[in-house]
Amino acid sequence: MIVLRRALPEFRWEGVDLRAYKDEAQAPFRGVTRQVLASAPDLKGELRYFEVAPGGWTTLERHQHVHAVTILRGAGRALVGENVLDLAPLDLVTVPAWAWHQFRAGTDVALGFLCMVDAERDRPQLPSEQERAALESAPEIARFLSGT
Amino acid sequence: MIVLRRALPEFRWEGVDLRAYKDEAQAPFRGVTRQVLASAPDLKGELRYFEVAPGGWTTLERHQHVHAVTILRGAGRALVGENVLDLAPLDLVTVPAWAWHQFRAGTDVALGFLCMVDAERDRPQLPSEQERAALESAPEIARFLSGT
Repeated sequence: MIVLRRALPEFRWEGVDLRAYKDEAQAPFRGVTRQVLASAPDLKGELRYFEVAPGGWTTLERHQHVHAVTILRGAGRALVGENVLDLAPLDLVTVPAWAWHQFRAGTDVALGFLCMVDAERDRPQLPSEQERAALESAPEIARFLSGT
Repeated sequence: MIVLRRALPEFRWEGVDLRAYKDEAQAPFRGVTRQVLASAPDLKGELRYFEVAPGGWTTLERHQHVHAVTILRGAGRALVGENVLDLAPLDLVTVPAWAWHQFRAGTDVALGFLCMVDAERDRPQLPSEQERAALESAPEIARFLSGT
């Protein structure tokens, strides 16, 4: 077992692949990469590093499993349930079960974060048209989702 | 549920207690604090932030559960199994099941790290005199454990 994976420049790590965030055919997103930092059969959690490029955003989705997020780099905002949050390095974000959520980088700055999650977890759900409209009925959330 | 805990100066977080690393009567250590960043009934992992003061060290111990460590601050070294590792920010350390391990800060600099661990886990074991002597039979490990 490899006990040390050294940090490389620009939030990369020795021996850790830079992966697609998810299958582009499955869900909408823009400019997101994923690196799996810790995942093992004898570990019930996984730790991943996601980076959202300037102007990019993760999929708006919800699921039963919980995310415990630690911001590492840059700046951005997140929607979590009905909250729009401004994010800075080392801020901690909890995404509760079934909360709609999305992370957005700043226009000119990337947003990088660690995400701890259960290794065994359910598949994310995308919002229906009605669910998206319900979210957008709050002006602050509508502005967030439109990237303005 | 609190969805955002903002980072405060000096690796503290809003609403997160600064705790003793462990009961001083139970195990030897020097200058270590603990903050629980993520722990919830519907999350199988926990995320903690440990900080080892300059010259300090965590307990030399082993257990079945695995640690996935991300260095966040400062510099130091770790013993993991038979490996003595130099550590810098963002380095990833995996402590496999039953590997003897200890983290040491530099003489003049603290060492701060995130540690992901299963919420349900076994109790650490301390080395017997014989086990410690066996570890110290390797000169590099003997120097590490003596702090030189």
